[in-house]
Amino acid sequence: MTDERIWTAGLLVIGDEILSGRTQDRNVAQVARWLNLQGIRLNEVRVVPDAIGRIADAVNALRAANDYLFTTGGIGPTHDDMTVEAIAHALGVPVVVHPRARAALEAYYATRGGVTEARLRMARVPEGAELIENPTSGAPGIRVGNIFILAGVPHIATVMLEALSGKLEGGRPVLSQTIGCWVAESEVADLLRQVEAAHPGAQIGSYPFFREGRVGANFVVRSTDEAELEACRADLVRALEQAGHEAVREVA
Amino acid sequence: MTDERIWTAGLLVIGDEILSGRTQDRNVAQVARWLNLQGIRLNEVRVVPDAIGRIADAVNALRAANDYLFTTGGIGPTHDDMTVEAIAHALGVPVVVHPRARAALEAYYATRGGVTEARLRMARVPEGAELIENPTSGAPGIRVGNIFILAGVPHIATVMLEALSGKLEGGRPVLSQTIGCWVAESEVADLLRQVEAAHPGAQIGSYPFFREGRVGANFVVRSTDEAELEACRADLVRALEQAGHEAVREVA
Repeated sequence: MTDERIWTAGLLVIGDEILSGRTQDRNVAQVARWLNLQGIRLNEVRVVPDAIGRIADAVNALRAANDYLFTTGGIGPTHDDMTVEAIAHALGVPVVVHPRARAALEAYYATRGGVTEARLRMARVPEGAELIENPTSGAPGIRVGNIFILAGVPHIATVMLEALSGKLEGGRPVLSQTIGCWVAESEVADLLRQVEAAHPGAQIGSYPFFREGRVGANFVVRSTDEAELEACRADLVRALEQAGHEAVREVA
Repeated sequence: MTDERIWTAGLLVIGDEILSGRTQDRNVAQVARWLNLQGIRLNEVRVVPDAIGRIADAVNALRAANDYLFTTGGIGPTHDDMTVEAIAHALGVPVVVHPRARAALEAYYATRGGVTEARLRMARVPEGAELIENPTSGAPGIRVGNIFILAGVPHIATVMLEALSGKLEGGRPVLSQTIGCWVAESEVADLLRQVEAAHPGAQIGSYPFFREGRVGANFVVRSTDEAELEACRADLVRALEQAGHEAVREVA
């Protein structure tokens, strides 16, 4: 039984465009949800600029602290794409051209002007790496050790995650149930704490909102154990109703 | 003259809901854009779970590495709101009730059921802290040393940022110009590198896209110097056109 072991991942988002506010990141949420389906918990995210030393330092911190490390961004053909070089530097290995990545690029660009030196940059990997399939654009993702190097463009990252689905060892996924309630969370703070304390295998998160001029909150119950999840959810509904607050479905 | 000094900030996003993928973060982009208007560069973002030790470690790393540290999330009244306690722990100071925060909560809740023990949690601050105004909900943000503690709900964080506008010392804002082009970025990778190298005070980022069945890229030129920005932009347009690619406005 490995039920009690929690598998964790770090995520490193690489790119000046996120830190400047120009681009709204979409990869944190999609990697998080995908990891949960694999039974792996996203444990930390870092966002760093396009700078080799900064990327390498974050890679070394996050790969040591977690079972897996995912990165997004910086694997294109231009001068601001530094991820492969930075990760090779972090690992102390050279950058090499991967023959199968080169072949994939040659196939993809056969009708698109051929493989140039710039395009060949997308076939470079840290020595010892394997490829992650990417049918959409020819440039593959990369796996090296416990590091998974994905594209920054969200729909390409999605395809790479799909190629990895079911292939990573994980534990039990975190299950969740959400209850909505038209109550100020401060009115039920004690109640939430007591219900959570009565269910050591479950956690309750409280997320306030303002809708139609009224305050309310969604309460998210999380557990890896389905029976514990349901017991905690039922207790929470009962406690809210005893306090005079109707529990409804999640308020989106 | 402090023109050459670059002021930096770290951002710590606190919350299980971001790491589970339940909630799409909106604060990284808004804090990034606001910081740039203040002449401060967002240098790193970390996202950590609702866990005191994890928050405290990240706070100490980011406050030491940057001129300023901003945090979002975890300052509400419920048991999963741990930011104040974690930051006090990181600073080695006790948590105290701030009299003016207490008065603000009393005023806000006078017609909303009064200040309960749970609500009073929102008046707790690390010793030595000042408040950041929040007219919208009574619960203020907090400044302690170089740390700015903001709400996680994006529109409340916005109000707290507005209260800080123009009050932090910064350098010159990063200016940017974006050029769109219907070309695969790999075709112009050498050209981009050469133009960037000719303008040491400017950087060029390349962001590919797929629209209407065609590939293209936006090239973002950034500089703190308006003349350098314009010179680099003009050179890039000229180089693209000499290579047979029409430069257009940013493709959204």
